Amino acid sequence: MNAGLKNRGRKREDVEDRRKAVEQRSGSQLKCISFYSFDPIIAEKNIENMIGAVQIPLGFVGPLKVNGDSAIGEFLVPMATTEGALVASVNRGCSVVTEAGGVSVVIVREGMTRGPVFRVEDVRHGLEVSRWVSDHFEELKKVAEGTTKHGRLLEVKPFAAGRNLFLRFSYDTGDAMGMNMATIATEAASRLVERETGATLISISGNLCVDKKPSALNYILGRGRIVLADVRVPADLVKSKLHTTPEAVAEACYRKNLVGSAIALSYGFNAHVANMLAAIFIATGQDPAQVVEGSMGMTTSEVVDGDLYISIRLPSLEVGTVGGGTKLPCQNEALSIMGCVGAGKAKKFAEIVAATVLAGELSTLAAEAAGELASAHRSLGR
Amino acid sequence: MNAGLKNRGRKREDVEDRRKAVEQRSGSQLKCISFYSFDPIIAEKNIENMIGAVQIPLGFVGPLKVNGDSAIGEFLVPMATTEGALVASVNRGCSVVTEAGGVSVVIVREGMTRGPVFRVEDVRHGLEVSRWVSDHFEELKKVAEGTTKHGRLLEVKPFAAGRNLFLRFSYDTGDAMGMNMATIATEAASRLVERETGATLISISGNLCVDKKPSALNYILGRGRIVLADVRVPADLVKSKLHTTPEAVAEACYRKNLVGSAIALSYGFNAHVANMLAAIFIATGQDPAQVVEGSMGMTTSEVVDGDLYISIRLPSLEVGTVGGGTKLPCQNEALSIMGCVGAGKAKKFAEIVAATVLAGELSTLAAEAAGELASAHRSLGR
Amino acid sequence: MNAGLKNRGRKREDVEDRRKAVEQRSGSQLKCISFYSFDPIIAEKNIENMIGAVQIPLGFVGPLKVNGDSAIGEFLVPMATTEGALVASVNRGCSVVTEAGGVSVVIVREGMTRGPVFRVEDVRHGLEVSRWVSDHFEELKKVAEGTTKHGRLLEVKPFAAGRNLFLRFSYDTGDAMGMNMATIATEAASRLVERETGATLISISGNLCVDKKPSALNYILGRGRIVLADVRVPADLVKSKLHTTPEAVAEACYRKNLVGSAIALSYGFNAHVANMLAAIFIATGQDPAQVVEGSMGMTTSEVVDGDLYISIRLPSLEVGTVGGGTKLPCQNEALSIMGCVGAGKAKKFAEIVAATVLAGELSTLAAEAAGELASAHRSLGR
Amino acid sequence: MNAGLKNRGRKREDVEDRRKAVEQRSGSQLKCISFYSFDPIIAEKNIENMIGAVQIPLGFVGPLKVNGDSAIGEFLVPMATTEGALVASVNRGCSVVTEAGGVSVVIVREGMTRGPVFRVEDVRHGLEVSRWVSDHFEELKKVAEGTTKHGRLLEVKPFAAGRNLFLRFSYDTGDAMGMNMATIATEAASRLVERETGATLISISGNLCVDKKPSALNYILGRGRIVLADVRVPADLVKSKLHTTPEAVAEACYRKNLVGSAIALSYGFNAHVANMLAAIFIATGQDPAQVVEGSMGMTTSEVVDGDLYISIRLPSLEVGTVGGGTKLPCQNEALSIMGCVGAGKAKKFAEIVAATVLAGELSTLAAEAAGELASAHRSLGR
Repeated sequence: MNAGLKNRGRKREDVEDRRKAVEQRSGSQLKCISFYSFDPIIAEKNIENMIGAVQIPLGFVGPLKVNGDSAIGEFLVPMATTEGALVASVNRGCSVVTEAGGVSVVIVREGMTRGPVFRVEDVRHGLEVSRWVSDHFEELKKVAEGTTKHGRLLEVKPFAAGRNLFLRFSYDTGDAMGMNMATIATEAASRLVERETGATLISISGNLCVDKKPSALNYILGRGRIVLADVRVPADLVKSKLHTTPEAVAEACYRKNLVGSAIALSYGFNAHVANMLAAIFIATGQDPAQVVEGSMGMTTSEVVDGDLYISIRLPSLEVGTVGGGTKLPCQNEALSIMGCVGAGKAKKFAEIVAATVLAGELSTLAAEAAGELASAHRSLGR
Repeated sequence: MNAGLKNRGRKREDVEDRRKAVEQRSGSQLKCISFYSFDPIIAEKNIENMIGAVQIPLGFVGPLKVNGDSAIGEFLVPMATTEGALVASVNRGCSVVTEAGGVSVVIVREGMTRGPVFRVEDVRHGLEVSRWVSDHFEELKKVAEGTTKHGRLLEVKPFAAGRNLFLRFSYDTGDAMGMNMATIATEAASRLVERETGATLISISGNLCVDKKPSALNYILGRGRIVLADVRVPADLVKSKLHTTPEAVAEACYRKNLVGSAIALSYGFNAHVANMLAAIFIATGQDPAQVVEGSMGMTTSEVVDGDLYISIRLPSLEVGTVGGGTKLPCQNEALSIMGCVGAGKAKKFAEIVAATVLAGELSTLAAEAAGELASAHRSLGR
Repeated sequence: MNAGLKNRGRKREDVEDRRKAVEQRSGSQLKCISFYSFDPIIAEKNIENMIGAVQIPLGFVGPLKVNGDSAIGEFLVPMATTEGALVASVNRGCSVVTEAGGVSVVIVREGMTRGPVFRVEDVRHGLEVSRWVSDHFEELKKVAEGTTKHGRLLEVKPFAAGRNLFLRFSYDTGDAMGMNMATIATEAASRLVERETGATLISISGNLCVDKKPSALNYILGRGRIVLADVRVPADLVKSKLHTTPEAVAEACYRKNLVGSAIALSYGFNAHVANMLAAIFIATGQDPAQVVEGSMGMTTSEVVDGDLYISIRLPSLEVGTVGGGTKLPCQNEALSIMGCVGAGKAKKFAEIVAATVLAGELSTLAAEAAGELASAHRSLGR
Repeated sequence: MNAGLKNRGRKREDVEDRRKAVEQRSGSQLKCISFYSFDPIIAEKNIENMIGAVQIPLGFVGPLKVNGDSAIGEFLVPMATTEGALVASVNRGCSVVTEAGGVSVVIVREGMTRGPVFRVEDVRHGLEVSRWVSDHFEELKKVAEGTTKHGRLLEVKPFAAGRNLFLRFSYDTGDAMGMNMATIATEAASRLVERETGATLISISGNLCVDKKPSALNYILGRGRIVLADVRVPADLVKSKLHTTPEAVAEACYRKNLVGSAIALSYGFNAHVANMLAAIFIATGQDPAQVVEGSMGMTTSEVVDGDLYISIRLPSLEVGTVGGGTKLPCQNEALSIMGCVGAGKAKKFAEIVAATVLAGELSTLAAEAAGELASAHRSLGR
């Protein structure tokens, strides 16, 4: 292998060397990739084998009025995407919900989880280990929290099957998304469990976390934050701005998001939650693979007193304003647009994200519903 | 609202104006975001309200030996991420599977889908419409294909419930991921269905597609490509390079990916498929929200004749080498590293992606398994 | 062990002997159990270790008007249950739907399945075996059908993951539920696959059948019969007979069957489909464990022109009028009430079952909805 | 309608009248159905429109050695079925596990649930209602428990989406399965919630219970009892009695119950749990429709020190020894065979059921595995 391919360093010239080696080996020209403005040393905990950067076009939506507990006011929201029409559509939604008075947002649960798997002797041993864990929660908490400044162990839930025992640890991780914090703390606690109970840790992640996979477990118990948001849009606003009616939006939402998703046995009862999450996650240095569990949202819509009621439920929204990619310059700037940089801002950020998701859901559903009206016009016009 | 916030144009100065307006309104400084190297006009179909770009650190893994039908040889694979250790870990996996002779990859199904929902009178009417669709497939095909140069209608599957009729259209979309192509073609075909059967189109997406939501439908019927990959790693290579044993990796895979995911009722029986997909998707201009369905992979592992057999099944891998963000300069360069630019390259690309996913799965499972050995060492040493 | 416990014979005196041995060993008195009217010899293929019979109270519902393709007219339907109020409630539903003109029923798919699992060398071998199966379908069909008078092999669908290859065989099994027929035919075909491809049969059921387990596979692809049924009930009938309104029933159906089941990630979007199935299955000699997949129904309801539209979708209704317990005297008599004894009656029977299920769904949803009205009355009356 | 069809009474002659009316109307002869030994009056809370009874052949399995907390010793277990070979197969399993020392059983959770759905104003109102419920748990408990002698309210879990609020009430229902008890208590508590919070009860079952539908909710949180059982079978016993090897059984279990069920996205990772449940439920007066949630078991198997380890996890086993059909004569006798009649016996009964399920799983998996050996013999013998 070409020596230049090795991961020898973190300085700009090391990056250059590697990039050239890649060019040479692959016969490609990596001009655009070599164009980046940050010092690689600040990304040393974010990437290895760095050869440059990829530029993702960044747009924004808003102003979006949010009536949350932490996010109160009008916000501009950055979105990085290469999917044409996405920003425009979400922006339309923002305009409508803001004119309607803004999006209410409530957070109903918080906690980042890690779910290791242990091998036990048999079901009775598994039960004993579970009981030990329950009886020694304070000890586990002390050991787990000894590894972290900000993390707090909230609970440990056991799930057993045969010689497999899963312990789902849940943490308050402050303003960090918290996956690493949870992993390190759980590793320490798991070693204590091993020593005291004779259980053997097989994998620090036993897929009961559940990280980056769609799962009923996260859907039902939550991971990160469970966030609900809603808005009521007056009928005339639906007509003037969205060119459709509350009835048509509610029908599209019913047949598509509920019946359709039910027929598909989907874990996502929504139109395109993942789009908004992916664009905001990429813009702000979140972990884009966690869009997977984020996508499991439920969008409901009803006609209430002639107006359009629409809501979103996000059972697994995993975001942070410290750690991960949030400290990289562009990403940090993107967070700054919303006033969500650093400590004390994660709840605010989660609320803005949920509100933006709702705006995006409204706009897409309305567009789909209006398509039906268009067809009605055509068929009437024949 | 500040006039600068409006989406007035696509030139660099328009972007500047908007960016400044955003800065002014939000009180933020967007220096890094203003640093980008491509002409906004070439991104005009990728973003609206553009204010700059986000730089995502780009690394690479490889050489990775792939034994596919279209991808044959050793490849370097670009990955854009802010998650530290990911590139290093996948790279380790690439090194091992390459030394083991490379990853076999087979594609077993292709087809991009769109699943509109129609309102019908009742179940009998729904059945009549389904039959009409079946009887007039050639007509539908002609109308659908009349909207596209490359798309070919492969089949239409009906799903009915009460007054809801869903038609899942499946297309060969060539080297494009094909969502837009499928949407436009399905819209045309749906209008024909409406005219001829009395069914009313309610939403061009009835969530039977299923786009950007986890779903049993895609998991079982496939969307994009169903891709399988595997490799057999000699026991001594597992020991020397991964510091564990085939038995330990197989046990971790069994307890975590199978039992654990089963207990969590996850649609993903894997370690972290989404990580590899997200990093490659972002690097190469794919739709990152489609990591959602991509994440539904199954990783299996067994000890075979003392060696480690490991495989991945991706039932819904949606990628393209034309369209979407693939034509943007950085993204295009990233594709060029693998020799996957443009027409005729989508299968090759899909095979490389699947092989990289497998390398990443192997490395993470081995790391988790080795953690257990470490613990064994400690407990033995007491 | 007491000799009397052994399964020595099938005559009434053998049954007596065993029963007495059970009484002796357990210290119980089995008088009621010893009271049965059929000759044990006719049940010799239905049970082993027979000690008597359990009497399940039998009621009936109807007349129920069915507008199917095979079941046309008014029927009385036998139900065996120990759950008080069930028969009365379903009967109320029958009365309403009959007065409303009867239940429309359509069957949209038929086929009993068996899905063995084979061990293959690797994914490429698995693909070769799949192709061999596809290329030699006629041969497989011949071998499979050589084991049965009535079964016809319809298709074989492959599903692969690593060293596991699943082949889902689907059969037309005439008027039998057909599980045994499908098993024997698939065993023969599987041996051919083994001989010709080098694949090794690991289990004749690989859980891709999917027999007696809830599964997305059956939900989406169907097993037994996919049956849809619906009825439109005039508003005044809803009021006079069900003491509620179309709006209230539709709302209960929406919040419970759709939103509730979606929140619970249920495979059953209905009120109590399993109740009707269990009671009819037990009465008529069907396999009561197949109520499991039968329970995965979807009940939808809408207000249409002021009236109540309600429908049921049963994706996996597995019934027969020959074989299994259908030939036992009581069970046969129960089938005779509906004119569904023996050959040529399975479709008719499936249609009557689906119509009864719909009647039961309507009655329960209406009762739940009326509960709400009651509460409204109380709260209004304070 | 013939007057005789009316549900006029509960005496034997009323049953006769109705039966004759059914015969007349349907042209059938219901001799066997008219043969039953109990006084209809004792079934008056179990059935309406009674016309007789259906006789289900009853067999038994055992002796089965159970090492539970309540069930300790060897038991004979009654099974009512018309599926030939089922009793014989389970009996074989009982013989093997008993010789292996018996089945260990542990119960890890108890609680019968009811999950009504309320309509709330919006997500913020829903949050307020949830908080009210949490803050007034003791009040709700008092009201709920005021309706029942034996039921104890354990917890109330809220789940919200838009204008839908679900409250999942969980009860200790003593030795009754407890569904009716839970319904009545929840109705009372729900009225209190309505009065105090402004929420409107839409349906006393909002499908968050989840009764008689397969669901992730029950699978994860449990309903009725979560029961685990296991046994370790020496290799030579596997060979002599089951004609296969621990390795072959473990492989069949792995490829079928885990990989197969995962590919099918089944909620049941087992061979045929529903069979044992259905046969015991019907014999003992349980609710056979609850076999649906019971079927969601997970069977795991491993080779441990050369022996066969096999376990079952039943997350939703709903049984009782009082109430329902348990007081009917035959059913009561069936319970008496196990010493499980009446108060204080539900845990014992649940443990015996789980042990029987395990015996049935072992026997079927071994039979499937041995089928493979047979094939190996044939292929070796060619």
